[in-house]
Amino acid sequence: MTAETLAEDGPVTRIEIALGARSYPILIGRALLADPGSFSHVSAGSDALIVSNTTVGPLYAERLERALAGHHRHVARLLLPDGEQYKTWATLNLIFDALLRRAADRKTTLYALGGGVIGDMTGFAAACYMRGVPFVQVPTTLLAQVDSSVGGKTAINHPLGKNMIGAFYQPQAVVCDLDVLKTLPARELSAGLAEVIKYGPIADMAFFDWLEQHMNALRAGDLPALAHAVKRSCEIKADVVAQDEREAGLRAILNFGHTFGHAIEAGLGFGAWLHGEAVAAGMVMAAHVSQELGLADRAFVQRLVALLERAGLPTHGPVIDPADNAGSYLEHMRVDKKAQAGEIRYVLIERGHGAVVRAVPDALVREVIDRCCAT
Amino acid sequence: MTAETLAEDGPVTRIEIALGARSYPILIGRALLADPGSFSHVSAGSDALIVSNTTVGPLYAERLERALAGHHRHVARLLLPDGEQYKTWATLNLIFDALLRRAADRKTTLYALGGGVIGDMTGFAAACYMRGVPFVQVPTTLLAQVDSSVGGKTAINHPLGKNMIGAFYQPQAVVCDLDVLKTLPARELSAGLAEVIKYGPIADMAFFDWLEQHMNALRAGDLPALAHAVKRSCEIKADVVAQDEREAGLRAILNFGHTFGHAIEAGLGFGAWLHGEAVAAGMVMAAHVSQELGLADRAFVQRLVALLERAGLPTHGPVIDPADNAGSYLEHMRVDKKAQAGEIRYVLIERGHGAVVRAVPDALVREVIDRCCAT
Repeated sequence: MTAETLAEDGPVTRIEIALGARSYPILIGRALLADPGSFSHVSAGSDALIVSNTTVGPLYAERLERALAGHHRHVARLLLPDGEQYKTWATLNLIFDALLRRAADRKTTLYALGGGVIGDMTGFAAACYMRGVPFVQVPTTLLAQVDSSVGGKTAINHPLGKNMIGAFYQPQAVVCDLDVLKTLPARELSAGLAEVIKYGPIADMAFFDWLEQHMNALRAGDLPALAHAVKRSCEIKADVVAQDEREAGLRAILNFGHTFGHAIEAGLGFGAWLHGEAVAAGMVMAAHVSQELGLADRAFVQRLVALLERAGLPTHGPVIDPADNAGSYLEHMRVDKKAQAGEIRYVLIERGHGAVVRAVPDALVREVIDRCCAT
Repeated sequence: MTAETLAEDGPVTRIEIALGARSYPILIGRALLADPGSFSHVSAGSDALIVSNTTVGPLYAERLERALAGHHRHVARLLLPDGEQYKTWATLNLIFDALLRRAADRKTTLYALGGGVIGDMTGFAAACYMRGVPFVQVPTTLLAQVDSSVGGKTAINHPLGKNMIGAFYQPQAVVCDLDVLKTLPARELSAGLAEVIKYGPIADMAFFDWLEQHMNALRAGDLPALAHAVKRSCEIKADVVAQDEREAGLRAILNFGHTFGHAIEAGLGFGAWLHGEAVAAGMVMAAHVSQELGLADRAFVQRLVALLERAGLPTHGPVIDPADNAGSYLEHMRVDKKAQAGEIRYVLIERGHGAVVRAVPDALVREVIDRCCAT
């Protein structure tokens, strides 16, 4: 895509997540949030609850509420505190409390209006309330639009591990309004770019080339560039999820950088680093491991580091335990969901093949962690 | 079935829950708990965690652990406090803590060894831990053997409503060892009989006739009689669940007596009445409503009351709010999972048809509650 303008009433991109009876569309375009037409796939007539946070809610909840007014019998709002440190049972329970106080029935539709934390928690609440009510993802961060809102992974954190308690539960639709990215803080935009960059090495190096060419436009908030990045990311994710909804195998490749990343998030305490920041540093470590094993070459690692730096992302991990930093990383990674029988499994990049999932000797991983963490 | 003896090495009844890829067997027989062969359907090789409570665990956990020793790499135990009042997030979290402390992986199999509370909580933990690990139901109460362990409904309570937070999540097998019923307190046996009796009016009045003839044997713990009651109950439940796994319609009939019953449990505080006791009083109220609407006749109500009394069950509801008892029942029932748009829907019995689901005017329901609650 070149730098042509993207009109507010321009075309809406529609990507289908093909999962049989659980199929649903992702809509990508401008001014979708305020357009009742964006929600025509959602069952009408029931009550609705918009779940958002205290940052995003004041900006967009009213607009969404107006768009839904003709679609639902009654639309209510609930604002949760903002941040990964609130992705807990206690906050989740605020959603259940709000639903039960209104005697919300089994057809009540939940709308997740926010970033990954709101989407993951609202989706998990929808999966569990009365054993399942419909929900819709309205992601307002780049990270949520390109990754977390798509594919039905929902969860909360446990102090001992990221996303350890959750469900595979698909939304009825994902509505990505590009206009909301205009109010996104630069740090959040960068965090989202980490997940965008991820799709290159695991699935599409031509897209990686495109990202190298358009990184300046993306960071400047250029809408046509963002539209393409969101579209291509969702296409890749839709393709992977349709092949392996419940992560029996292939889907694990979407976790490139996440094994190390989750250790960073849990190790520092949730919320200290943004998820995308942790994934960025994690991808660098996974790339180094790939190089050490002879799967990837030095030039690839350098290109990845350079692009992440241009995206405004950290390329070194933090020290999470000065006494035994690598040991602490390994301990956190042993509860990773890909681990089997105590053996950590890493998503690595293999030249010409994309992502592969492998066990790696602890000693080699320790060495990479020691090299890749800033003291 | 007549009163012939049931040998310890007698035949094992096998009932299939037909749910495509999620199909699984229910095994019913003697001495199954200690027999490794009972678990041959369960994926082998992984770690296992037996979840039980402080009443049942000391009696049976070791026996089960020995039976599983050759099947799993390592078998651990977790004992939770006993009682409906512990069917909460806080207790559920003890399961997650135990799993994460051991860095339990995605293939770890959970065994629910206990009654309905242990089964519902362990099943829900299995549904949520890492977004889903395998689990097996080993029900040790009559209620769990004939109802709660079968069909994949898992949940915890919320202070505002019974089973409000949960998942449809099927076990890999249900193993009903009739021998464990020998240690079941009489009150618990009676509570289980409430769910057994339920199957008569909703699905099989010939079974109701049989129950009238064998109630003395059942209460005396006669194993052939109990074997038949468990078998016929599971057959009916398997048939209903196979037709409607996620309660889109038909499955609601299994909730006969439960709308009033859940109001009793939540209204008195969970644990004051046993679930089966609340269901018994609830079935009487639902039968009276059926009669008032001309669906059932007086003779049916009298037969039901008489059989419940012979089973040692309450046939009057408790007063849960002296100021406005019927109003309080109605308020609790408005958050029932069958309610739609604030309208409570009741499972009623219609002559010649079995169960039907209907809305009923509040005034009529109030009258029945006033008549059926002991002051």
